[in-house]
Amino acid sequence: MKLFGGIEAGGTKFVCSVGSGPYDLSDEIRFPTTTPEETFGRAIAYFQDQNAKQKLTSIGVAAFGPLDLDIKSATFGYITSTPKPGWAFTNVLGILSDELNIPIGIDTDVNCAALGEYEWGAAQGLETFIYLTIGTGIGGGIVAEGNLLHGAMHPEMGHIRIPYNREKDAYKGYCPYHQDCFEGIASGSAINDRWKIPAENLPRNHPAWDLEVEYIALALANYILVVSPQIIILGGGVMSQRELFPKIRLRVLELLNGYISKLENKGTLENFIVPPELGNKSGVLGAIELARRISL
Amino acid sequence: MKLFGGIEAGGTKFVCSVGSGPYDLSDEIRFPTTTPEETFGRAIAYFQDQNAKQKLTSIGVAAFGPLDLDIKSATFGYITSTPKPGWAFTNVLGILSDELNIPIGIDTDVNCAALGEYEWGAAQGLETFIYLTIGTGIGGGIVAEGNLLHGAMHPEMGHIRIPYNREKDAYKGYCPYHQDCFEGIASGSAINDRWKIPAENLPRNHPAWDLEVEYIALALANYILVVSPQIIILGGGVMSQRELFPKIRLRVLELLNGYISKLENKGTLENFIVPPELGNKSGVLGAIELARRISL
Repeated sequence: MKLFGGIEAGGTKFVCSVGSGPYDLSDEIRFPTTTPEETFGRAIAYFQDQNAKQKLTSIGVAAFGPLDLDIKSATFGYITSTPKPGWAFTNVLGILSDELNIPIGIDTDVNCAALGEYEWGAAQGLETFIYLTIGTGIGGGIVAEGNLLHGAMHPEMGHIRIPYNREKDAYKGYCPYHQDCFEGIASGSAINDRWKIPAENLPRNHPAWDLEVEYIALALANYILVVSPQIIILGGGVMSQRELFPKIRLRVLELLNGYISKLENKGTLENFIVPPELGNKSGVLGAIELARRISL
Repeated sequence: MKLFGGIEAGGTKFVCSVGSGPYDLSDEIRFPTTTPEETFGRAIAYFQDQNAKQKLTSIGVAAFGPLDLDIKSATFGYITSTPKPGWAFTNVLGILSDELNIPIGIDTDVNCAALGEYEWGAAQGLETFIYLTIGTGIGGGIVAEGNLLHGAMHPEMGHIRIPYNREKDAYKGYCPYHQDCFEGIASGSAINDRWKIPAENLPRNHPAWDLEVEYIALALANYILVVSPQIIILGGGVMSQRELFPKIRLRVLELLNGYISKLENKGTLENFIVPPELGNKSGVLGAIELARRISL
């Protein structure tokens, strides 16, 4: 049986694992994302060890972005214009390929998470859906009619602008590119900057949560109207607050106001906006699936 | 050579034609959209005449929506929850199939326009792009990685919400479902309702145009961040004001603020937000291409 490596190269932490799917993932390691040199150094050492134990067929990388995924580009496989200090224009594919003599595939962390949920999780058998993560940042991957959507680059859907009522919320926003885009007002970083308390420590009755539900619902309603997904999977640290799900569903329904008739039934909506079935393994499993796909 | 029929069944007018592509379109007729009975009656009479002259292989219908395109649904081929008086839950496919003994395909007017531009127009050779029409209403079709995007239904991207500054523009919006969504504040109907002058009669220095550029650019920036299109084709009556194009391009660039690095070059942007190459024939030609596809 073929064995694959998967790296979830997130902006906050890296997860590395080896296996062929969710039932035989082994030897997972997690470590914080520091400098590119140190972080990739740890990943490379891990895969060199693993490969010495049992040969890996290929490795998939689920990286935070924006990424250059245009194979004809001089910066193919790079993280490009990220605001993350020290990481702009990091040659992810080059660093890993130079040290590991193994075929390597790369896609966004969220496209990989979508791929993991498509293969083994909440989106099995579907053709069109969105995987959205709301954590330190906000990003989304899209499977459209059975294909991972890249287009000119890849979705950067956390950065859409939504109606933002400054009378209700005077916070100016956190995004260094767009200030008060969705990520700029609703990401974990924005919550922390806005309230000076990390999202996971905010009490359940804190006014932050009503704003959060409103912003997430506005963004989801927009995504639904553009992409027409069969489901939306909401992952990431902020969404580990599961009590947000029913509130978001109801507000999305109000915002669409009967226009998308398929969603009028609340039972439908419960199966429409859902948590990831693979929990915090969607990304690394998607990276393994990506590795499998490039080996075919 | 096979001959196909195409109907652009728009909310304002119907266009019917026969041919196999842009070089042999013949006998086009156009008539206003009145009641379903009268309007489809005229289309049926036209295709019965044409079919008597020379047998048609199949007919494609490019219809305004929302449409039910789920083949398993009891209302497959219907226009569903449209605000257009007399047209909600019109069985488009049924009415035409009952009278014309010819295979009939149906998709949204904008998906068909995208298909026309993909086959013969501005999007030839591309994999992922958006066709957006800004006319009486606002709607968009998407080709994603080479496939028309339907998902759960089909995009209804004219109805996204964008930041709307009531201090700059006190107009409440025109959309019966969402009031001040993009269509509700920027469609031709909204312009007419807002200023009591039809868009085509507004002087070029009218303040309406600055607002229009702002709203369109906000929507396009959101679409770009979600879909990552290789180009956006802007059609429809409002966009026949070609001086809007350079203003929209510049404002989109400002809104994205360097985040989508591929668009930083203004030359790139000129080839990125473009008018339809098939002019006002995108829809009917896309309907003919749809007819060809269902005959394969």
